[in-house]
Amino acid sequence: MKLDDAALDQLFRAARTHNGWQDRPVPDDLLHQVYDLMKWGPTAANSCPARIVFVRSPEAKEKLRPALAAGNVAKTMAAPATAIVAYDLEFYDKLPKLYPHTDARSWFAGKPEEHIRTNAFRGGTLQGAYLIVAARALGLDCGPMGGFDNALVDAAFFPDGKVKSNFLCNLGYGDPAKLHPRNPRLDFGEACAIV
Amino acid sequence: MKLDDAALDQLFRAARTHNGWQDRPVPDDLLHQVYDLMKWGPTAANSCPARIVFVRSPEAKEKLRPALAAGNVAKTMAAPATAIVAYDLEFYDKLPKLYPHTDARSWFAGKPEEHIRTNAFRGGTLQGAYLIVAARALGLDCGPMGGFDNALVDAAFFPDGKVKSNFLCNLGYGDPAKLHPRNPRLDFGEACAIV
Repeated sequence: MKLDDAALDQLFRAARTHNGWQDRPVPDDLLHQVYDLMKWGPTAANSCPARIVFVRSPEAKEKLRPALAAGNVAKTMAAPATAIVAYDLEFYDKLPKLYPHTDARSWFAGKPEEHIRTNAFRGGTLQGAYLIVAARALGLDCGPMGGFDNALVDAAFFPDGKVKSNFLCNLGYGDPAKLHPRNPRLDFGEACAIV
Repeated sequence: MKLDDAALDQLFRAARTHNGWQDRPVPDDLLHQVYDLMKWGPTAANSCPARIVFVRSPEAKEKLRPALAAGNVAKTMAAPATAIVAYDLEFYDKLPKLYPHTDARSWFAGKPEEHIRTNAFRGGTLQGAYLIVAARALGLDCGPMGGFDNALVDAAFFPDGKVKSNFLCNLGYGDPAKLHPRNPRLDFGEACAIV
């Protein structure tokens, strides 16, 4: 069954990357609801390598501020919450819980760092996309951003060195007046082929 | 507005990675519909680096076969379509169309390969997740897979070397009888923090 047009609009067609935020709070319970949806999205060997820090207190926002590109500071300080979407380079230690029917931990533990990093980055990025779509499905707007200093964020929020930041995503209820004009997308034939 | 429970189930909570496929075709038009939803998902600088080959003809399936891990052969040969989700290392050549208000091409062209590859892989992976959720939103089931030889797929489908395979995703209408038991996910506190 296809979802109705209103749902497809909300998830994809009318959803926009927001830069301004209404003065409407995002309760902790709603952040839990976002996670309780996104967690079901598939990752290789159910490895679920994403780790997410929802930055919402003024103190934590100040910790984030020096890492932000200049153009991302005001909107991030104003957002009800900013998700640091990150990935765990030791994700494999959770595999006995996540993929219990075989020894999947041994597919990664002690293996070349590139193999571990690629799986963590791919899976963590898939889960970052699930977070965006899950937030929209719950009526939230998103403002994902790559413009920040990963090393500064990692030092401030993940000092043990095992978790690496991937991208940031402001969360809240967007102010449509602050949207930029929408950019075009590639046509099917520019991006896809059926063979 | 939150989507209704049936929609949240279809997108996330009840959606599963499928291994068996009903004998029900997936018309080309539906693959176009999947793309026309997923294309709206956000990527850095709207770079849209994903490239997708929908493998559906017997000839193209045979080209894919030797690259598949043994456990993925039968289900992939039986699937109505298999998406090769890939990313374009020369994505920046589309930026004058995709991000026309500034010279975003210069942010990547001629820059270190690692910078280009990271953006292509991150954006292409986000778009792969959008593909999965878009397909589910249109009533399709997905069977994403990492078990294949990337180099063989690249040689067979992307011989110019500019496009690299990321993951595969079977598409069709799944056979619930062939589902594996669902694996657990991490609890909120194992994967997330609110600070």
